[in-house]
Amino acid sequence: MRDAYHEELDSIGEGLVDMARLVGSAIGRATTAILDGDLKLAEAVIEGDKKVDELQHDLEARAIALLARQQPVATDLRIVVTSLRMSADLERSGDLAQHVAKLARLRFPARAVPQDLYATILEMGQLAQRLMAKAAEVIVSKDVDLAMQLEQDDDEMDLLHRTLFQHLIDDRWQHGIETAVDVTLLGRYYERYADHAVAVAKRVVYLVTGEHADELQPDIQPVTGVEGA
Amino acid sequence: MRDAYHEELDSIGEGLVDMARLVGSAIGRATTAILDGDLKLAEAVIEGDKKVDELQHDLEARAIALLARQQPVATDLRIVVTSLRMSADLERSGDLAQHVAKLARLRFPARAVPQDLYATILEMGQLAQRLMAKAAEVIVSKDVDLAMQLEQDDDEMDLLHRTLFQHLIDDRWQHGIETAVDVTLLGRYYERYADHAVAVAKRVVYLVTGEHADELQPDIQPVTGVEGA
Repeated sequence: MRDAYHEELDSIGEGLVDMARLVGSAIGRATTAILDGDLKLAEAVIEGDKKVDELQHDLEARAIALLARQQPVATDLRIVVTSLRMSADLERSGDLAQHVAKLARLRFPARAVPQDLYATILEMGQLAQRLMAKAAEVIVSKDVDLAMQLEQDDDEMDLLHRTLFQHLIDDRWQHGIETAVDVTLLGRYYERYADHAVAVAKRVVYLVTGEHADELQPDIQPVTGVEGA
Repeated sequence: MRDAYHEELDSIGEGLVDMARLVGSAIGRATTAILDGDLKLAEAVIEGDKKVDELQHDLEARAIALLARQQPVATDLRIVVTSLRMSADLERSGDLAQHVAKLARLRFPARAVPQDLYATILEMGQLAQRLMAKAAEVIVSKDVDLAMQLEQDDDEMDLLHRTLFQHLIDDRWQHGIETAVDVTLLGRYYERYADHAVAVAKRVVYLVTGEHADELQPDIQPVTGVEGA
């Protein structure tokens, strides 16, 4: 039987998985909301982010209480500190899903995404959701190989991001500046969301191997120029 | 005389101030680089971000070692955990300054910022640098009133961000889509940079008062719509 201490540690891990599931669902629903121009769904996502924030507060409070009471060292200490970081990544992912939903709400009843970018944004949304589902699985399984897979998925996201920018700077772009601004921000939201999912997985690698998978923050520079200037 | 433990704690605080100074300088220089189209300066900022990352690694390692060795409780525990978060904010601010510099490099020898937005971007850059200087001062002084001031400065940043978007969606915009994309991303970088500076200051408030100044992540929704659609 596990002692109270390790049960507490486990429950922090479960809290992280709950957060990952919530923000995974949020990005999926936010994507539907922006593609379909669904105001109610957008509002549900915006409202739902409070639950993510609550989970994070709760999880942080428990992690800090555990540090104070149990004074873990070595691996256990690393788990708690890393959990704090993961919860910050997940909270931020929730914010980004919320940004997508807010853009849907802002443009309602119009749609922020023009028809010829529908498929690309749909793919970005689906990929983001898959990345987060895998990140949740990595938290549970501590599977380092699966964690490494997320990097490849993230390459796919970068590719989609480039596709988006190619559309934007194409001479045939006919949707005006405001839509270009919206699409630029949307692209950035998905891309950052994916970065946070990757960061969560990498932090698990760090826990398992004791080594930084490299240092996360894989973040982009402006991709416009890759094909553009 | 202070004991070794508190000296170590102080040195973590000093590390945070060093980071804040570096990333404050970085955003100032990145702004000059993008406004002047100065490739060498842009490259110096990009290169200089490594130093920020090193400082963060070093600071984190020391914080975790301190947790393991000294097992602080109560206030001291809070200081160490909060320091970890502040270092993450500062590291991320450094990334954002680097993004500005990378955009300058990408567009060189052209300039990313059209003449009629020069003044606005300059103001955003200066304000970002001032915000970070104040955040550094807050770390040193633990001055809660000064920390609260940063929120007002951040309102100013939001205002500048709106001005930027007003220019973008103005019918007279003549700079094409690529420049619109660049300016959209630039606006987002400065705005996020400011958010992180505010978050650092708020975390000091939390340390001093034990209360979350509210929960940070003041983050924007797309401001385009505020005056736009």
